[in-house]
Amino acid sequence: MSRFFNGCDKSYDNSDIVLFGAPFDGTVSYRPGTRFAPGQMRIESFGLESYSPYLDLDLFNDASVYDGGDLELPFGNKEEALNKIEEYVSKIFKAGKKSFMIGGEHLVTLPAVKAALNAYPELCIIHFDAHTDLRDDYMEQELSHATVIKKIWNYTGDNRIFQFGIRSGLKEEFKWAQEGHVYIEKYSLKTVSETVRKLGKVPVYVTVDLDVLDPSVFPGTGTPEPGGVTFKELHEALISLKHLNIVGADVVELSPHYDTTGASTACACKVLRELLLVMTYYT
Amino acid sequence: MSRFFNGCDKSYDNSDIVLFGAPFDGTVSYRPGTRFAPGQMRIESFGLESYSPYLDLDLFNDASVYDGGDLELPFGNKEEALNKIEEYVSKIFKAGKKSFMIGGEHLVTLPAVKAALNAYPELCIIHFDAHTDLRDDYMEQELSHATVIKKIWNYTGDNRIFQFGIRSGLKEEFKWAQEGHVYIEKYSLKTVSETVRKLGKVPVYVTVDLDVLDPSVFPGTGTPEPGGVTFKELHEALISLKHLNIVGADVVELSPHYDTTGASTACACKVLRELLLVMTYYT
Amino acid sequence: MSRFFNGCDKSYDNSDIVLFGAPFDGTVSYRPGTRFAPGQMRIESFGLESYSPYLDLDLFNDASVYDGGDLELPFGNKEEALNKIEEYVSKIFKAGKKSFMIGGEHLVTLPAVKAALNAYPELCIIHFDAHTDLRDDYMEQELSHATVIKKIWNYTGDNRIFQFGIRSGLKEEFKWAQEGHVYIEKYSLKTVSETVRKLGKVPVYVTVDLDVLDPSVFPGTGTPEPGGVTFKELHEALISLKHLNIVGADVVELSPHYDTTGASTACACKVLRELLLVMTYYT
Amino acid sequence: MSRFFNGCDKSYDNSDIVLFGAPFDGTVSYRPGTRFAPGQMRIESFGLESYSPYLDLDLFNDASVYDGGDLELPFGNKEEALNKIEEYVSKIFKAGKKSFMIGGEHLVTLPAVKAALNAYPELCIIHFDAHTDLRDDYMEQELSHATVIKKIWNYTGDNRIFQFGIRSGLKEEFKWAQEGHVYIEKYSLKTVSETVRKLGKVPVYVTVDLDVLDPSVFPGTGTPEPGGVTFKELHEALISLKHLNIVGADVVELSPHYDTTGASTACACKVLRELLLVMTYYT
Amino acid sequence: MSRFFNGCDKSYDNSDIVLFGAPFDGTVSYRPGTRFAPGQMRIESFGLESYSPYLDLDLFNDASVYDGGDLELPFGNKEEALNKIEEYVSKIFKAGKKSFMIGGEHLVTLPAVKAALNAYPELCIIHFDAHTDLRDDYMEQELSHATVIKKIWNYTGDNRIFQFGIRSGLKEEFKWAQEGHVYIEKYSLKTVSETVRKLGKVPVYVTVDLDVLDPSVFPGTGTPEPGGVTFKELHEALISLKHLNIVGADVVELSPHYDTTGASTACACKVLRELLLVMTYYT
Amino acid sequence: MSRFFNGCDKSYDNSDIVLFGAPFDGTVSYRPGTRFAPGQMRIESFGLESYSPYLDLDLFNDASVYDGGDLELPFGNKEEALNKIEEYVSKIFKAGKKSFMIGGEHLVTLPAVKAALNAYPELCIIHFDAHTDLRDDYMEQELSHATVIKKIWNYTGDNRIFQFGIRSGLKEEFKWAQEGHVYIEKYSLKTVSETVRKLGKVPVYVTVDLDVLDPSVFPGTGTPEPGGVTFKELHEALISLKHLNIVGADVVELSPHYDTTGASTACACKVLRELLLVMTYYT
Repeated sequence: MSRFFNGCDKSYDNSDIVLFGAPFDGTVSYRPGTRFAPGQMRIESFGLESYSPYLDLDLFNDASVYDGGDLELPFGNKEEALNKIEEYVSKIFKAGKKSFMIGGEHLVTLPAVKAALNAYPELCIIHFDAHTDLRDDYMEQELSHATVIKKIWNYTGDNRIFQFGIRSGLKEEFKWAQEGHVYIEKYSLKTVSETVRKLGKVPVYVTVDLDVLDPSVFPGTGTPEPGGVTFKELHEALISLKHLNIVGADVVELSPHYDTTGASTACACKVLRELLLVMTYYT
Repeated sequence: MSRFFNGCDKSYDNSDIVLFGAPFDGTVSYRPGTRFAPGQMRIESFGLESYSPYLDLDLFNDASVYDGGDLELPFGNKEEALNKIEEYVSKIFKAGKKSFMIGGEHLVTLPAVKAALNAYPELCIIHFDAHTDLRDDYMEQELSHATVIKKIWNYTGDNRIFQFGIRSGLKEEFKWAQEGHVYIEKYSLKTVSETVRKLGKVPVYVTVDLDVLDPSVFPGTGTPEPGGVTFKELHEALISLKHLNIVGADVVELSPHYDTTGASTACACKVLRELLLVMTYYT
Repeated sequence: MSRFFNGCDKSYDNSDIVLFGAPFDGTVSYRPGTRFAPGQMRIESFGLESYSPYLDLDLFNDASVYDGGDLELPFGNKEEALNKIEEYVSKIFKAGKKSFMIGGEHLVTLPAVKAALNAYPELCIIHFDAHTDLRDDYMEQELSHATVIKKIWNYTGDNRIFQFGIRSGLKEEFKWAQEGHVYIEKYSLKTVSETVRKLGKVPVYVTVDLDVLDPSVFPGTGTPEPGGVTFKELHEALISLKHLNIVGADVVELSPHYDTTGASTACACKVLRELLLVMTYYT
Repeated sequence: MSRFFNGCDKSYDNSDIVLFGAPFDGTVSYRPGTRFAPGQMRIESFGLESYSPYLDLDLFNDASVYDGGDLELPFGNKEEALNKIEEYVSKIFKAGKKSFMIGGEHLVTLPAVKAALNAYPELCIIHFDAHTDLRDDYMEQELSHATVIKKIWNYTGDNRIFQFGIRSGLKEEFKWAQEGHVYIEKYSLKTVSETVRKLGKVPVYVTVDLDVLDPSVFPGTGTPEPGGVTFKELHEALISLKHLNIVGADVVELSPHYDTTGASTACACKVLRELLLVMTYYT
Repeated sequence: MSRFFNGCDKSYDNSDIVLFGAPFDGTVSYRPGTRFAPGQMRIESFGLESYSPYLDLDLFNDASVYDGGDLELPFGNKEEALNKIEEYVSKIFKAGKKSFMIGGEHLVTLPAVKAALNAYPELCIIHFDAHTDLRDDYMEQELSHATVIKKIWNYTGDNRIFQFGIRSGLKEEFKWAQEGHVYIEKYSLKTVSETVRKLGKVPVYVTVDLDVLDPSVFPGTGTPEPGGVTFKELHEALISLKHLNIVGADVVELSPHYDTTGASTACACKVLRELLLVMTYYT
Repeated sequence: MSRFFNGCDKSYDNSDIVLFGAPFDGTVSYRPGTRFAPGQMRIESFGLESYSPYLDLDLFNDASVYDGGDLELPFGNKEEALNKIEEYVSKIFKAGKKSFMIGGEHLVTLPAVKAALNAYPELCIIHFDAHTDLRDDYMEQELSHATVIKKIWNYTGDNRIFQFGIRSGLKEEFKWAQEGHVYIEKYSLKTVSETVRKLGKVPVYVTVDLDVLDPSVFPGTGTPEPGGVTFKELHEALISLKHLNIVGADVVELSPHYDTTGASTACACKVLRELLLVMTYYT
């Protein structure tokens, strides 16, 4: 039952997309966290149909997804954990497949994008989040879930990162973004489809920090920030990505221990299914 | 305090509507479930005013509702449980009254509709739900909360069932519906008022699977399915039913043990009050 | 960490706004309640940035707020508790500062408004709530969270109180309001900005009963009433108040023990920050 | 299902013991509280067998208990609420039956004991509790769950009250007790059986404040006080009462909203069953 | 992370003990239940050391356990589910290994014991539980978690089943047991070590229904029954089994959704580790 | 209300004991953790009497405790956080007062003990815990809550550290301890009073990791380990310390977000009160 996400039963060789968990939350203590997300999502995925009426596609019948389980990541060594992720994702791209990662905290996106940039140097980033994640450092740490997009920008440079739903950050972060380094749509997702048209066929990495959703929809996360989008708004934005050439994606920041009713995990699972099918649709 | 739903204090003889609980969830084990819904709703109903400003009607002063308590249903014998419900509802109709049932799981709708069809052969069904419930069988069982509407269709035939808010099901279920057997509005409730106009004065049974609501609004249910309607959307749709000749209704699938904050039970209670007053309005 | 609300670190003398808690919930027993709200909000405020991208203002850098902690209120003596609040708020006004109170139950608004009326006789009241709070008495008690606005009306008279989002009350309360005593917008907040224009530069007191929010957004309260406004709707309404001369405000009815996920407390904190910055904006 | 406590299905006339709920918690606000205990216990009682292997007695077959439901008590008027309880219990005694009350807060014991004293002037009191409840007033209120035993002493005088498991109170309360007014066994229940022997055949009222149990066993209460007795210790003490002539009893201070796992309610139900059967055993 | 229980990383061929999950709870509806136990326990097992100071043994270094994951069981077909379990366990015994099953509800013990009896006809059963489980049928169903031990007795006959900690059942069940068919120690575990001595080297199957623990220790189960044993008492009893020739074992009835703090799952994991090491000790 | 722990209202100058919070949990992410413990304990302390019947002492009347609030600790810089604690505690000792720290995670004990060793070079350590905390490093980190006692040993050397209640650790840790470096009583607290006698009048630091309590008593912690001591056992051990010359103490590892019922926080508060009064008793 907990072996693979519902509908993701293909073998590695027969798969187009490789799904895996990166249960890293950068803390040394047991219990808190996003590290429990991949395991919990696999368990709860059995409450979700594999068929999407929105896309008229089915994970079992129409997609080819291999669930590779969770990476074993050394909690006490941030650098090594990130290296392991980068290495694993690089192999996926070398095999001509697409990568789909379940976090863990948002920092895990850094190595996955680095691997994607290596394979697709012209890669652009679509980023859904409540937070800018554009700090240079957070509490004196360069590698942090609050700095991850800035670190990615170090590799991509300007005009390659598109942020949506942002509603929290430092004044400096917003200012820096507005100087033209990254695109930010504050509070909503209205310009996603316009961005999709602009991007055309360029390879794209999609990173979904689930706290872009309003806490009413998704309380099960570390830093709930009121004023977010509804599930339907996020879902519609995700569906509009179906014309993009998405080569990699991730869903991060579910923290199951704060999901007292199970509704947040159900959201995470449905976002995962829809995004896998969106990637399948393009193929 | 737990004796009757707040405002439903009339005697059987003086009542127009008979309210009762069908605490059946088809499981043999104690604890999980929708079977706890009627009792919990009676307790929590005292946090809700009996007066509706939306309809300018009051359960105490303007409606005549008898709360008959809960049926005693044998958990180990599905057929007998359904028979008991059918028998009880049949008596209500024979007495010239209207029936209002609190589930329990959705399967309890089957015997209530059968009794209604017996009394009103031209009966139509209005169905709010996240799920199609149109399977022929579910895990080899013909009688299931996932098959209930299909079983009802066996009695009504085509063009008598109207489904709203549906967002989950098998590909085959959607296909079968689209062949013209039942009407489905996917994802939203926009065509409810149009349907109301079409139905005119024909007797109607209304079944509300509360998981039609988004899990942010109603997490306290067995199978939360993200992407549902808001409370205001459901409420508006229910109010638009006030011109219908509703002879029977039910509210099902509240599972109080998953309602960690009490908000789901508050929703169920308000749906119940409004629907009782909608039925009173027509009278 | 729990010493002051995040960003409210000014001294009394250097402050424009005095923030304080009124942890009163009118009950004799330990544990239930809104009395825990101010302490909990201070703790959780550290998950919220002090900077608002909506207003481009920062609590640390742009506002001057002193957090005076919580008043010590005698639970067994309602009258004395209310006197203490009135006395404390009166001093704030005498010092030429603005008052911001964290409840506690809604009854605490009565003495704060009395103090404000003393300092600003032409004061008007903006009131967000699910409930009318217009009873003459509640269960034989004149002083109650269900009577508070009616008691305030005794001091202001007609045309000075503006209620928004109201969706629960007795028939008599709605009728009394409609006779022209107070302004009520039922269910929504659409006429807030219109009201703001009408009020011009008159001194205003803003009282936010957080249960105006839908229980999906804010389940952590004593009496969740489905059908409320979204966070974005309330937020937009609050932002539109920035042209008003707000001399006093409060945020009431958070009940942290029913906030199983922390999302309600996060809402309360963000409402508090935005309203403090709205008051700062006018200055 | 919620109509009567499991096994308590006799008619009033055929009953030896009348069970009823006194859902009073002395607060004006909805939601917090012990007022929800009787309703919740009836619902959850169906997870408990009616047969006690400890006493080899069965509620259905061996006892004669009528469940009279809950009294309707005016929350806003403490005196009237207490009068209603006293009146109801007095009738039970006049009919030659025994009384069993489910609280509510501990204050409800006062009128029940007054009625019992009227019927049995030589009545003694057995009291299980974490708290002394011997204050003269609490926050300026004479009638309170913290003063209830002192108020009872006003009617009984010295040497008639026996307290067990006490571990919290003011210095003055302990001192007053030790002056010989009431018997206190601090922390444990070791002298219960000795007290039983002393009491012989005198009529006895037993009041069980469930917070005598350690919070590990019974967290679902208003004021959890660590260091309490285990369930087995309380159970053994209750069984030892079977040789007493118990004419009245109560079980108070379950607060279901703080019982996140249901274990506290299960404890309350089992205490109720065993105490009903202990009273049956004597008969 | 969720791939295997912490410390159980051996291959099938190199293992002495095969651990597997039987996520069956006999219900047709998603969500409630013991079916979630094996997955949850694997996730949470990483909070537990693999080393036991009690036995001075380590799962990694001293034991040889293969974690075979969860069986895929058809929820709608009880008979087939039981057949699948029997088949799987039979293979384990044929390979000369020992079987360790994680439930699921207690009914899963029936097929495991049948397989064990086939391999070891002289098998005896050690049974820890709050409930007798000796009914002939439960709500008209022969196969139920309330009948499982009686069904096993049908295969073993008298004097082969030893029950400990029992504190709930029908009068008839206790009476039947006392007629000499099975050994019952009510309420406690004091005679476990004596039983161990009697059993000598006979092959033994140990089934631990975790609700033998008091609900204070283990609330996360379907039917919490107050008055159970402490963790230390159960642990001591399990350690005393180390001289037995245990060929099969199971741990059942953890229901993670009712484990609001995680403490029940932690208990289940520690019981699992200790019992695996007890079986390793004998080897 | 949240300003100081109930009963700890003395000024710094008039105090014998300085109480303060060290809300450090070594993680970079918001939300998880022990960092919330001091604030939560101050809030909940108002449910606890200031009088201890066990010691016949009262925090208000008999003790002189100043509550200095929480230190502001930089989460991203472990070394600096520890330095700040050491500095603060050093000042307390220089002023001739005693130190009492509320954690935070167990690592905060290291700097407090270092400061104490500086003031009292002959200091001994009494340590209550479920875990040995004797590793050299944990996941490649030298400073960790799993290494704290070993780091302290680096300063004290052999025969100065006394551990009680230990039931989890690596084989190597237990072995190292048994080589004579530290005293360990596994599983229980029976030798505490004997140790007290041995220690005589030597200055002592007492560190209480609350997970020494069984998870049934104290689930609200990061790593619940079944098989712990009861509250009464811990309490009795603490009372037996009253003849010791305790110069410093701490209570660590309460994680309020996992304390779903509030019982764990109530335990932490009572441990705090009793230990403060134990230190007062000696004075």
